[in-house]
This record gives sequence, C-alpha cells and structure tokens, in this order.
Amino acid sequence: MQTLGTAAATGAKRADARKNIAAIIEAATVSLAKDPNVSVNDIAKAAGVGRVTLYGHFDSRAALIREVVNRAIDDTDRELNDLDLEGDPREAIARLLEATWRLTHRYGSLVVAAEAALPPDDIHDAHVQPIIRMRGLIERGQASGAFRSDLPIAWLIEVAHSTVHGAADALHRGDITEAQAPALITDTVLAVLTPSR
Amino acid sequence: MQTLGTAAATGAKRADARKNIAAIIEAATVSLAKDPNVSVNDIAKAAGVGRVTLYGHFDSRAALIREVVNRAIDDTDRELNDLDLEGDPREAIARLLEATWRLTHRYGSLVVAAEAALPPDDIHDAHVQPIIRMRGLIERGQASGAFRSDLPIAWLIEVAHSTVHGAADALHRGDITEAQAPALITDTVLAVLTPSR
Repeated sequence: MQTLGTAAATGAKRADARKNIAAIIEAATVSLAKDPNVSVNDIAKAAGVGRVTLYGHFDSRAALIREVVNRAIDDTDRELNDLDLEGDPREAIARLLEATWRLTHRYGSLVVAAEAALPPDDIHDAHVQPIIRMRGLIERGQASGAFRSDLPIAWLIEVAHSTVHGAADALHRGDITEAQAPALITDTVLAVLTPSR
Repeated sequence: MQTLGTAAATGAKRADARKNIAAIIEAATVSLAKDPNVSVNDIAKAAGVGRVTLYGHFDSRAALIREVVNRAIDDTDRELNDLDLEGDPREAIARLLEATWRLTHRYGSLVVAAEAALPPDDIHDAHVQPIIRMRGLIERGQASGAFRSDLPIAWLIEVAHSTVHGAADALHRGDITEAQAPALITDTVLAVLTPSR
C-alpha cells in the first residue's frame, strides 16, 4: 500500500506540474503579447503560481520566452498550413494576409520580447516558413499574370510584411480599428501586386 | 597684457570646447546611425576626445543622444521644407518619398537608439512635422483625383512610413540594393495611392 500511495502521490505531483507549466505558458503568452517588458513576477501572478514554482520549471525569463515563442511558431505554422492557398491567387493571398494579420495581432508584442531576449538567428528562423509560403504564392500569381513581375520578389514579400506590421502600429495608435485592419491590409498589398496599367 | 593674455587663453579654450562638442556630435551621429548600442567610450574615441572631456559637455549618454536627435530633427525639417511639393501630386510625393528615404538611410539606427534612450513623447514629436507634411500632400492629391480617397488618410500615411522603413530593413538584409531603394519605395506607395480601376 505504501508503494501504491507513493505512486499516486507522484502521479498527482506530475499532473500538478503539467497544469502549472500550461498555466505559466498561457499567462506568459497573453502577458508578453500586451507588454514585451512584463516581469517574471507578473507572469507568475497571472498564472496563479509562485515565483519559485515558475523558476522550478523555467531556468530564466529567456528560457520561458523561448518556450512561448516556440509554441507561437508551431501554432502559426499549423494555422497557416491549414489554409487553402489554391485557386485565384488574389483570393488566396487575401486569405493568407488575413490569417497572418490575425496571428500577428494575437501575439502582439511577443515578437518585441523575443527580439530583446533571444539570439537574432532564432528570430530569423521563425520567419523562414511564412516567407517561403508567401513567396510560393506570389510566384504562382506572377506566373499566371495576376501579379506584377517588374519588382523584385523579395521586395514584394517585404511590402506584405511591412503592411501587416504597419497595421499593428496604426491600430495601437488608434488610427484604424480592429475591424478595418484585414481589408486595409488586403487592399493595400493587392494594389502593389496588381500589374501596372 | 595680463588681462589680454587671459582673454586670449579663454577665447582659445572656448574655441577648443566648440570644436570638441562639434566633433562629439558628429561622431555620435555617425556611430549611432550604424550601431544603436554604441558606447560612450567608442563615441569619445571616434571623436578623438577623452571620456572625461565628453562627460564635461554631456551629462549622460541620454543627454548626448537627445542633442544628436534634436539636430537630426532640425536637419530633416530643413531639408524637407526646402523641397518643392507643388505641381503634379504624383511627382511631388515621389520627391518627398525620395528625400524621406535619403534621411532615413542617413540616420539609420539612430531612431532605435532614440527609442531606447528617450521618452516616447520625444520620439512622437519627431514624427509630427513629417506626418503633417505628408498628410497635406496626400489631401491635395485626393482633392485633385490623383490619389484614392476610399482608404483612411491615416492609413495611407502609415503605408508610406512602413514602406520607407521596410526598404531600410530589406537593404540591411541584402534583399535590395541602395540604388534600387528610392524607385521601389516610390513605385510601391504610388501603386497604393492610385485610385482603383
């Protein structure tokens, strides 16, 4: 009975640890999305755990941010992979831009926190898959004549990226509303991608 | 003679101080444009003065950055005020975008250093005059039918801003060349400003 009781206690401890880790990551994701400088103390408070418990699971603020960023990258990849990017290139890129905007808005200032806490290579890697996906779609649109081919493709990708981030800044300043953002982004990027008259 | 000699010595000291201040500001502008985290030591070295001399003129790194930023803002305002923004709105905005790009490229990462060292209000103030100038020109183009009126003007200004900064990022990554940048920026912003077909 002693052994069984210990095993049950160990199991309960493990379940507690899993619950705490999940709560810490969720609290850190939400907190960092709002404030890239949020402290470990405030994250622990938001997760309903003590500072010691948090540091029991994550060695440092950077280690916690790395875990949050890795999960955000996985979620982003999964959501973008699920998109239908076939059919009319203009409609497909509208779907890709709207999903990219939704994810950028969800993770907010997490990218600022990541840039401050993680090595540049990690940040760069996070952008590789989204860039490959956008490039493939723009190339397909160029091949079909739906998109202009007279500007470097790396520039067209940069314009899409800058426009999404510009919308986040404009929303933050109150210059545009959350409801306006997706259509403004799509209109703007399509205006640039459309072959000149 | 004693009095005259002292006056001459004081005059020479003042001239030295002026020369040092000018050298420090010039070195700080060039250094901060390349590396926003450059140390006061490295700025002093680049200016050819000692650390003690630098701190004799500027109380802190932030005080020096404030002076550099104030001069950059003054230069920017003067250069943009000298532009001819009359005539065809498309040609006028091309001139404004090219000058904005030239200044953004010249001051490089100074804005990053300023954001880290100065209060947000100071940074905001630096953008007020350029925004007013851009807004006036876009409104004139909208009134004449040269520019589209179906997107919020604050958004169109954000697009111009994001495009210039996107070009700086793309150049930094090696995705575009310095020679390509002005035409890419102008093409892109004009594509967005042109009324939809």
